[in-house]
Amino acid sequence: MSRFLSPLLGKCETPPPIWLMRQAGRYLPEYRELRKTAGSFLNLCYSPEMAAEVTLQPIRRYGFDASILFSDILVVPDALGQEVRFVEGEGPRLDPITEAAGLKKLDRSATTEKFGRVCETVARLKQDLPKGTALIGFCGAPWTVATYMVGGRGSPDQAAARLFAYKDPVGFQRLMDILVSVSIDYLSQQVQAGADALQIFDSWAGSLPESEFDRWVIAPTAKIRQALAKQHPDIPVIGFPRGAGMTTLKFVQQTGVDGVSCDTAMPLAFMSDQLSAAGVAVQGNLDPLLLVSGGKALDHAVDAILDAMRGKRFIFNLGHGIVPQTPPEHVARLVERVRQNGV
Amino acid sequence: MSRFLSPLLGKCETPPPIWLMRQAGRYLPEYRELRKTAGSFLNLCYSPEMAAEVTLQPIRRYGFDASILFSDILVVPDALGQEVRFVEGEGPRLDPITEAAGLKKLDRSATTEKFGRVCETVARLKQDLPKGTALIGFCGAPWTVATYMVGGRGSPDQAAARLFAYKDPVGFQRLMDILVSVSIDYLSQQVQAGADALQIFDSWAGSLPESEFDRWVIAPTAKIRQALAKQHPDIPVIGFPRGAGMTTLKFVQQTGVDGVSCDTAMPLAFMSDQLSAAGVAVQGNLDPLLLVSGGKALDHAVDAILDAMRGKRFIFNLGHGIVPQTPPEHVARLVERVRQNGV
Repeated sequence: MSRFLSPLLGKCETPPPIWLMRQAGRYLPEYRELRKTAGSFLNLCYSPEMAAEVTLQPIRRYGFDASILFSDILVVPDALGQEVRFVEGEGPRLDPITEAAGLKKLDRSATTEKFGRVCETVARLKQDLPKGTALIGFCGAPWTVATYMVGGRGSPDQAAARLFAYKDPVGFQRLMDILVSVSIDYLSQQVQAGADALQIFDSWAGSLPESEFDRWVIAPTAKIRQALAKQHPDIPVIGFPRGAGMTTLKFVQQTGVDGVSCDTAMPLAFMSDQLSAAGVAVQGNLDPLLLVSGGKALDHAVDAILDAMRGKRFIFNLGHGIVPQTPPEHVARLVERVRQNGV
Repeated sequence: MSRFLSPLLGKCETPPPIWLMRQAGRYLPEYRELRKTAGSFLNLCYSPEMAAEVTLQPIRRYGFDASILFSDILVVPDALGQEVRFVEGEGPRLDPITEAAGLKKLDRSATTEKFGRVCETVARLKQDLPKGTALIGFCGAPWTVATYMVGGRGSPDQAAARLFAYKDPVGFQRLMDILVSVSIDYLSQQVQAGADALQIFDSWAGSLPESEFDRWVIAPTAKIRQALAKQHPDIPVIGFPRGAGMTTLKFVQQTGVDGVSCDTAMPLAFMSDQLSAAGVAVQGNLDPLLLVSGGKALDHAVDAILDAMRGKRFIFNLGHGIVPQTPPEHVARLVERVRQNGV
């Protein structure tokens, strides 16, 4: 069994396992090389041979304890028929669904083919990964996926989705129900294809008032977790309610996740005390910009995290994804330091 | 004395005083009318007659307990000689200062004229405001102002400033020291011109790891607070470390602010219990999007806030600024409800 899985299943690993969000990506020259001939970004996600190759690139370089399927959280709306286009340098664009009437555009039966291609990538990876390297499947959390579906793009405050939810909570609940149900199917298919663990990314969980957080973050994630527990009782699930701050504790207690990923702003004392005491593995939370700057600031921050989490069920990771301007040698330095000092 | 000041000076007011961040602005037709002939946005900020007029507009309509000087947090870099341009629909643009060498462009002696114009607005308002309406002066916190000075624009993650601080903490400290010192002068001048209270807006406090939060949010704010306490011991100061979550408690304890403004995501129980117990007035935190949607969702959220904060030193406000598409009649409905049900 991969060392990555131990903390999720109840055991402290020394040194802690390490992987990094967006460990496959633009900071790697071999990724940029492949990307040139891969067509659109989503075409890369839907091409099992290429997607498996870019997933493997950082494993070859750094020997991370886990790999994560190379894909995107917007595969779900795209597969449902709300076509997603990636505009170079600007991010994703969708024809927004701003009211309940727009939900009829979504076609669940259409997902089979695109989910199938993603799962073919998972199956290839299952064969090609080194034995000790776990394979993480993932999806976006319903709330975060909905912010793109309603807003038509990324936004600093997710205003469009929040407004939809305030104006028509029943209609917005219908959208969330669709996303919960499709996400369960999608994650379950990834497990059937070979995923060893799952992560649910709620990148925009932090913008909601607590009552809305309960309704649109905790409740949908709890439903997904429960359904997966029935179908795949041995597969651990990590939640990542980015920006949730102190509400992360309630998230952990009420969703039933096995692990929680913490963003950069999460205080180490809270991770080490309250979150660990809640009986989950804690993952995080180095600032990705320290991987850009490198040097002593990086070393000190890494050691502070290792010191705070020593003896806990802990997985070393970033607080957010690697940024493109990261020098690959800084990642090597990080991995080496975690393995040396994390004992 | 204005009812607004009581909670800041130690007394619970019933019903709680109310004002709203960006209460003067684009949602008001009379503002849009004046804006047409005001030239650039900063020209409006620097024109005492017009700036005073738009400050007064929402007071006439709604009788808020406090008015806030109409200005912008980027007046400080602009006055220092780092020219700020507002691009329609895109926000502010500055020639970024990405390393310490760029700091020599900043000229403290240049601030006199522009700060003088802002203070003339304050002096006019002091004369023109109704007797019971307090006048709030403000500035951006050094960290948040620095994110624009270094990034040259707004950004979702403030990466440029965070990277500067990691790569060259000594140089970044010099920038912060300049901003602390200039902010003290600027706020002090606003008080001399007639401001009854001050607010320090740290809109981007939420993106920092805790150690950086201590250094770039808490320490500079504490320095500003201490200097103002010496010069103007009777003038209360409100801090707004947006996105700081649980770290807000430490911010309150270590900066010495008299009041803390809470964003939309701050749990009401934390405001009512921990923050109130820290001996400060608490301000907040209705979601501005509820002022767009209106209706029962608005009413229920207003009542939940009033119920949670009853008997506490509390000032009703939003969790963030009013958005332009807010129907003015929803603001009237809010004010009426707070005054009726906040007893």
